[in-house]
Amino acid sequence: MVIPGESSRGLSLTTKMEKLKQLALKIGKNAKNASSQMHLVKTFEKNSVLKKIASSIQKNKRKIIEGNLLDLKNAKISRRDSAFLDRLEITNQSIIDMCNGLEQIASLPDPIGTISNLKEQPSGIKVGNMNVPIGVILMIYESRPNVTVDAAALALKTGNSIILRGGSESLNSNVVLHTIIFNTLKNCGLPEQSVQLTATKDRNLITELLLLDKYIDLVIPRGGKSLIKRISDKSHIQVIKHLDGICHVYIDEFADKKRASDITINSKTQRLGTCNTLETLLVNKNIARKVLPKIFKLLLAKGIEIRVCKLTKQILTEKDFFALNKIKIATVKDWSTEYLDAILSVRTVEGIDEAISHIHKYGSSHTECIVTENHDNAMNFLRRVDSSSVMVNTSTRFADGFQYGMGAEIGISTNKLHARGPVGLEGLTTKKWIVLSDGQVRY
Amino acid sequence: MVIPGESSRGLSLTTKMEKLKQLALKIGKNAKNASSQMHLVKTFEKNSVLKKIASSIQKNKRKIIEGNLLDLKNAKISRRDSAFLDRLEITNQSIIDMCNGLEQIASLPDPIGTISNLKEQPSGIKVGNMNVPIGVILMIYESRPNVTVDAAALALKTGNSIILRGGSESLNSNVVLHTIIFNTLKNCGLPEQSVQLTATKDRNLITELLLLDKYIDLVIPRGGKSLIKRISDKSHIQVIKHLDGICHVYIDEFADKKRASDITINSKTQRLGTCNTLETLLVNKNIARKVLPKIFKLLLAKGIEIRVCKLTKQILTEKDFFALNKIKIATVKDWSTEYLDAILSVRTVEGIDEAISHIHKYGSSHTECIVTENHDNAMNFLRRVDSSSVMVNTSTRFADGFQYGMGAEIGISTNKLHARGPVGLEGLTTKKWIVLSDGQVRY
Repeated sequence: MVIPGESSRGLSLTTKMEKLKQLALKIGKNAKNASSQMHLVKTFEKNSVLKKIASSIQKNKRKIIEGNLLDLKNAKISRRDSAFLDRLEITNQSIIDMCNGLEQIASLPDPIGTISNLKEQPSGIKVGNMNVPIGVILMIYESRPNVTVDAAALALKTGNSIILRGGSESLNSNVVLHTIIFNTLKNCGLPEQSVQLTATKDRNLITELLLLDKYIDLVIPRGGKSLIKRISDKSHIQVIKHLDGICHVYIDEFADKKRASDITINSKTQRLGTCNTLETLLVNKNIARKVLPKIFKLLLAKGIEIRVCKLTKQILTEKDFFALNKIKIATVKDWSTEYLDAILSVRTVEGIDEAISHIHKYGSSHTECIVTENHDNAMNFLRRVDSSSVMVNTSTRFADGFQYGMGAEIGISTNKLHARGPVGLEGLTTKKWIVLSDGQVRY
Repeated sequence: MVIPGESSRGLSLTTKMEKLKQLALKIGKNAKNASSQMHLVKTFEKNSVLKKIASSIQKNKRKIIEGNLLDLKNAKISRRDSAFLDRLEITNQSIIDMCNGLEQIASLPDPIGTISNLKEQPSGIKVGNMNVPIGVILMIYESRPNVTVDAAALALKTGNSIILRGGSESLNSNVVLHTIIFNTLKNCGLPEQSVQLTATKDRNLITELLLLDKYIDLVIPRGGKSLIKRISDKSHIQVIKHLDGICHVYIDEFADKKRASDITINSKTQRLGTCNTLETLLVNKNIARKVLPKIFKLLLAKGIEIRVCKLTKQILTEKDFFALNKIKIATVKDWSTEYLDAILSVRTVEGIDEAISHIHKYGSSHTECIVTENHDNAMNFLRRVDSSSVMVNTSTRFADGFQYGMGAEIGISTNKLHARGPVGLEGLTTKKWIVLSDGQVRY
């Protein structure tokens, strides 16, 4: 059911807050009730619903686009910028992508019910773990309406209930998409309250929902850093955070020069604005003069601004590098900046220890890569760097659920606990202990 | 280093709070620094230190007992009850137990560095997970001084830094134990700041530490429910909670009568005051009359008070059960009470659905067991009951890290996320993604 945004004009603030509290409670209880039924739904039923949602989206394409046009019109009236409109717009291609996403999630193995590590103990009991749904997930996101479908599909496949709280600017699009999902669940005899959309524009509803740790098990905010910070500060429930991606490539003394160059260029320039884009290049001082001129030339050709530490500037001479004057000097602030832009900071370091110290001091524990042919250095880096993804000889741009073979992704977590890095189906499950026995008791 | 409790007499409140804030920050930074070194320590080094701590505890037995006598003396002056003194006291046996614990943790496999699920992806990169330390753990506990040693040992084995905040009543005991650990770490060349003890009695230090999400990754409170609630309300860091254990046994229509009786008696009476003790017995109405008389007789003989629902009382006649007058009627409050005492509530239900509904409505998601010979009912219960341990035909008293073959346990988590149920070494680790490649870039 779409939880309506009730009109609150003319109500006193206390009555308004009380109404919101009651609304939040109702949403939470609905979700929890549906969740206990979702535990039981069989894999083939879940897959069949996912496919039916896809075909219903196809059939209702016109309605979806009409709803979206309304949102686009309002956004233009509010003078939103083109990047915003771009995120908001549902095109024919986005409809195809949503449907493909649904089909793909249907085709993935069901993680629920898997039993692992079942072992007999000296007492005779058999102890193992069973993968189970987390329960109720609150998803808070901004303007992209496709998240409504993606998140609902991932929740459905993992037997979770989900409460969707999309940006108010995409409300009309979301209502159409949610109605399709709701009706399909209902027609298939699945608990339709397992996917709820909150349609009030009042932000205080989020605050009320974030207090309901009795009904909601996990909060996933997707959007800007300020949104995520605001939510995790207020939440009494665990939040999967997706904060900065200040990613590093370290070119080791024993790096292959061609690889060093390919990996740096790809990590920085394959896409500029993603969280797994390279932001700071670290380079061993014994190889800097041999690799940097070529890398800098390629970066400048691609329009990347380069900001280097003083040592880097000292090492390179005009003879090494024709365009030394085009290179700027980095400040301390550069090391901790996620540019998401055509800028790269570069620092020359003494060796792997200094590289790792730099990463731990200035990085965001997202994704880091070493380029080296030396096995010890590769293993050392792999073991010591405390980031959600640690790589050897490859592009940081690979840090992504699809590239990792997860088939789907609800986000990339910068948390250390529960889910870390790309979060796929597995990250939306938890484990319980199961004990099988033939009557053993404890002495 | 033992962080001293600085004298704050004569200081203004603002200066005092500022000093505490600085102290907390220092502790956090020390722990974080030590943690990055701990990532690297080899298994044989960790095991060797654990064994050396054990032998140093043996050697310094006298000092430990002297420190403990001081604590006991103070506790007696403050008129603490005998249960408290019992928890506080270090006997010859507790010293042997601590040393055995250390030896056992040394003998367990090292979970750190394990690589799992390494698979090649279509792009050619190999993606897998590596088990790594969580980082910095803040352990807050009450009067038992053995926790100082147990928790330090578990943290050490898993490559984590730990900040120990024991009860102020056991401060003298804790300081002696901590000094032994500190000196052994130092003598072995391991980062001695990886185990810190806070020795100020000011509770505000905890509040300051709970704000340091930049330095501390996990909080584990061990003690009464009020302590745990207070801490999780204040914490900006994830808390492993250990709240109620309202455990259920459900005797199914197809239960073996002998097993039903053995399991109920063992679950309730093997120990009364533990979190995995049975609190509410659910029984299918078609078997109630056949199993309850014998069970009630045995329970009464062991001094257990029985509180039943009205239906149970209706089903049993004087002919079935000689001592019907000794049985009380339960109120709704009984269903949600963790007695930790010689009381059992009993409810007759229509069938497995009502049993599961009761568990989800009144239980605490700790441990539940079905007694049945029917496979479908066993699997149904196993799949649907959303508790940290779900069991078939066995005693709830088995819900314990040692019984589950974990070798050691830092507590039992009632969280759904990160660690659930008994938390052993594995629960003190997390996973990062690792990517191995021979130069692949992304297209």
